[in-house]
Amino acid sequence: MPEYAVPTPKRRRGRPKAGESDAQERIVAAAIDEFGELGYDGATMRGIAARAGVDSALVHHYFGTKADLFAQTVGAPMRPDLDLPALLDGPQDGLGDRIVRYILTAWENPEIRKRGVVLLRSSIGNRLTTPLLAGFLQRELIGRIAAGIETPDATFRASLVASQIAGLLIARYVLQLPALAAASVDDIVEQVGPTVQRYLVGEP
Amino acid sequence: MPEYAVPTPKRRRGRPKAGESDAQERIVAAAIDEFGELGYDGATMRGIAARAGVDSALVHHYFGTKADLFAQTVGAPMRPDLDLPALLDGPQDGLGDRIVRYILTAWENPEIRKRGVVLLRSSIGNRLTTPLLAGFLQRELIGRIAAGIETPDATFRASLVASQIAGLLIARYVLQLPALAAASVDDIVEQVGPTVQRYLVGEP
Repeated sequence: MPEYAVPTPKRRRGRPKAGESDAQERIVAAAIDEFGELGYDGATMRGIAARAGVDSALVHHYFGTKADLFAQTVGAPMRPDLDLPALLDGPQDGLGDRIVRYILTAWENPEIRKRGVVLLRSSIGNRLTTPLLAGFLQRELIGRIAAGIETPDATFRASLVASQIAGLLIARYVLQLPALAAASVDDIVEQVGPTVQRYLVGEP
Repeated sequence: MPEYAVPTPKRRRGRPKAGESDAQERIVAAAIDEFGELGYDGATMRGIAARAGVDSALVHHYFGTKADLFAQTVGAPMRPDLDLPALLDGPQDGLGDRIVRYILTAWENPEIRKRGVVLLRSSIGNRLTTPLLAGFLQRELIGRIAAGIETPDATFRASLVASQIAGLLIARYVLQLPALAAASVDDIVEQVGPTVQRYLVGEP
């Protein structure tokens, strides 16, 4: 299981020169505009570079991929685009347990939990930002899981997984329902792991 | 299955007299204050009456029970306190399917869906109102389901049900993940019903 690393902008060490810092800020502002207007799928690195008045190579240099830039822009707590391949790559047996354990273990980290709660609150609470999170989840989480399971209704199944994971994170960390907030990771994996497994590959 | 009725304040027919309307508005304002300060469990009908400067009998006369008053104050789309007894009363076999079908069928009604989305968005988006919704769910939904299944970890199991239902409603109606938004009620019941059944009573 890959160790989780809080994403940080790819800055060189030391204080950035005034021009660099200015370009990075313009790129972030341009990314927020581009994602907000065109959605996650519609936004392009070229479009963001054009809005920021820089070359698109500079956007890649500072921020990496589109998923990287999006994650840095919204302060994403987790990176399914980076983490899912290793989870999906293991044996099909126990896949549901691995996914649930990986997510809950990451959210035990207070910094990740805090970012995650802010992201859930803001993206569900604000109708302008909801489609943006939905687009990212659709492309980088549901799309990747669906590609990994390869059944005819794979996207429906992966979306059911997303619904249970989102509901679990909201119930435990946002609503803080007492029995879920107090439960151990093991107790939750024991119950929710088989749900995810059944959604993904049929009966557990 | 009880037919769903959108809750409306218990007003008498015709235009209320000026004094009546004024008292009802004062009670609603007092309820918002009391629920906001003391939470769902801490709030009392007596306390709300005292804030509104009326007799508590008048609060009951206009608004019914505390759950009624809360539901009317927040514009609740569903009333687990009223609807769950009939759902739990049927055979244990198929209980998960019945609960999921009942909720999704209710949310197919555009008026209920609209209220529900507003309530989810506002209660998750605003940290002041989150505990209020959580308290209501804990008492009127999770508590009632837990009392109906009577196993040692009944509250944990009922909370897992709440997590899947909340996640499903958010994924289908707020995030509008395409495969879930497009799925039929039957297709979702077929997958999520067994999840709820397993959480409630063990293997489906």
